Amino acid sequence: MIYLDNAATTKPDEECLKAAEKYLYSEFYNPSALYKGGYALQLEIKETRERILSLIADVENFGLVFTSCGSEADNQAIFCGGKRGNVVTTAGEHSAVYSTVSELKQRGFEVRFAEINPDGSVNEESLLSLVDEKTSLVSVIHVNNETGAINDIVRLSKLVKARNKFTLFHSDGVQAFGKIPFKLTRDIDMYSVSAHKIGGVKGVGALIKRKNLIIKPLVYGGGQENGLRSGTENVFGIKNFGFAAEKRYACIKENYKKASEMHALLWEKLDKSLFKRISGENCSPYILSVSAEGLRGETLLHEADDAGLMIGTGSACSSNEKKRFSRAVLACGVSESVAEGVLRLSFSPDNTCDEILRAAEILNKIVANRKEIMK
Amino acid sequence: MIYLDNAATTKPDEECLKAAEKYLYSEFYNPSALYKGGYALQLEIKETRERILSLIADVENFGLVFTSCGSEADNQAIFCGGKRGNVVTTAGEHSAVYSTVSELKQRGFEVRFAEINPDGSVNEESLLSLVDEKTSLVSVIHVNNETGAINDIVRLSKLVKARNKFTLFHSDGVQAFGKIPFKLTRDIDMYSVSAHKIGGVKGVGALIKRKNLIIKPLVYGGGQENGLRSGTENVFGIKNFGFAAEKRYACIKENYKKASEMHALLWEKLDKSLFKRISGENCSPYILSVSAEGLRGETLLHEADDAGLMIGTGSACSSNEKKRFSRAVLACGVSESVAEGVLRLSFSPDNTCDEILRAAEILNKIVANRKEIMK
Repeated sequence: MIYLDNAATTKPDEECLKAAEKYLYSEFYNPSALYKGGYALQLEIKETRERILSLIADVENFGLVFTSCGSEADNQAIFCGGKRGNVVTTAGEHSAVYSTVSELKQRGFEVRFAEINPDGSVNEESLLSLVDEKTSLVSVIHVNNETGAINDIVRLSKLVKARNKFTLFHSDGVQAFGKIPFKLTRDIDMYSVSAHKIGGVKGVGALIKRKNLIIKPLVYGGGQENGLRSGTENVFGIKNFGFAAEKRYACIKENYKKASEMHALLWEKLDKSLFKRISGENCSPYILSVSAEGLRGETLLHEADDAGLMIGTGSACSSNEKKRFSRAVLACGVSESVAEGVLRLSFSPDNTCDEILRAAEILNKIVANRKEIMK
Repeated sequence: MIYLDNAATTKPDEECLKAAEKYLYSEFYNPSALYKGGYALQLEIKETRERILSLIADVENFGLVFTSCGSEADNQAIFCGGKRGNVVTTAGEHSAVYSTVSELKQRGFEVRFAEINPDGSVNEESLLSLVDEKTSLVSVIHVNNETGAINDIVRLSKLVKARNKFTLFHSDGVQAFGKIPFKLTRDIDMYSVSAHKIGGVKGVGALIKRKNLIIKPLVYGGGQENGLRSGTENVFGIKNFGFAAEKRYACIKENYKKASEMHALLWEKLDKSLFKRISGENCSPYILSVSAEGLRGETLLHEADDAGLMIGTGSACSSNEKKRFSRAVLACGVSESVAEGVLRLSFSPDNTCDEILRAAEILNKIVANRKEIMK
């Protein structure tokens, strides 16, 4: 089987699993326990926190709160940031942000959605026009999880602060972390990341935040994570996250190059008479979104699966919404018939060019067949 | 090393780890993905949900939401239940409940704390006297995590409903699940459980609730867990939780008997001139709380650790609060000098009577020595 749904989740890296195994089998203590075995784990978590943080931020000015997933990190950021006035976000957010701001709206908050460009990136003018003196939070996804569009959050956060220096800037970095070489700048107040998109395990994420930004917990209790996220720490998951993140960052540029090659190769080999490209020219090399206009992406997904190729249709998370079209893809301005035929092909450094060639063959064949049948 | 801090966390069961390993190494897909590999995991989660539920509740009338830990389940229950009027809980709650109702209080809510008895169980009269026509939620811990006192939540929930049939009843069942033979009754609306206290891994818990009770998410997003808990499901953790829960429930009565024997043996062998018993006669056999009055529990814990015995002082979670005394133990009405000397000894079915004998020897010795030094 060829797995090209790495934006949904990645295969946990075996080396990192092995390295973290002892936290399941022997070093199983509660990190809040005061005896040596427990305390040692407290120190290990602290060290992992700093190691992960140092990959993407200046550890002097940023802190990191381990959460149970990227969605939880997004929720914490948004519920903390959206406290007064209005909240500005984009029409191209992952549902972890989109549903959370929708809940804020339910609670009587004003939520403003910036338009997105055809490639899925946020329209800068639209975004800035929505920010005013009452905007408490702006949340812009770093890499769009459906189209791969990269938002220049360094620039956007700076422009937002220029309009209102009290506005907090959050970004969902789940599809960027470990993939796009990047460092957090001082105008980015909060940044969400996840382990299972970069070879770590499911059940771990983190909210990175400016050190002197005071935030509230989403989960209250024993005061773990410096009081910002209670609950016994998932030591295995956290340590494994650290190993996976370091491994990815050690080769982030080579991986980026490899992903770019696979991305270009796949698009080159896809039959342009059958597929329309949704992803823009400067998108993340890890995601290629295309549409077999007029066909149903879900049908194609099942045919590809039968032929040995696993792919996505838009966001895996939105499959629970049971909607016919992707909200984010429609917001790119495509027709319903294009939106219905969307396929998301997403890569990992473990994919090979042979797999890409075979995937293109399968996709060309099933779409051509289906079009033939429908004639 | 002898490990008698099983109320803080338990060593994950190796057989259950092995059984769940494939969800890390090969069946790693996103359960929301639509291809066969993803969908199969969706079905496996559904099956595990029903299996765990059936161990403690009638599956026709109850549902189960997987969360990232027991604390998160407590938070979701309390923030959902505490919506209007007042909330009633006890002075003997775990911090996952205590800190959460304290946050409700911060938000302007009225929170009422029922007194607890000397053994740590809630004072029934005090609890009921606090419930009135404006009480939206009552939360009573099932087994006190520090003293092991068992609250008769079947009886208490019935009495609460007799006073106000609209009041929701929640119980933190983290120290009871898989240990105390028990089935949920219709007056218990919500019940929190955790995997890592019964041989599962850290990072998984569940909120069990009456099926027709409408609750809100704590984490919003992709709509996983029937919209009640978003975030990519921790498949490995969930499957492992299912295996561990089934294994514990298969021997719940034998384990209870074994724990009772170890509990009785340890108390029998402890020198009564050195230790005062905090746990009551009818406490959970999995927890024995004692106090070396006049000494500092934390000092003894470290001495025991050096001698090869790992134990707790009150709740591991409350060690983050950096308080000298346990809030819950003080609420039992003991003096500060008794509270300061508290040691919590907690068992798992994997402990042996030999370990118990050795533990008693170590504890008697270190307390006697310390008292000698202090003379």
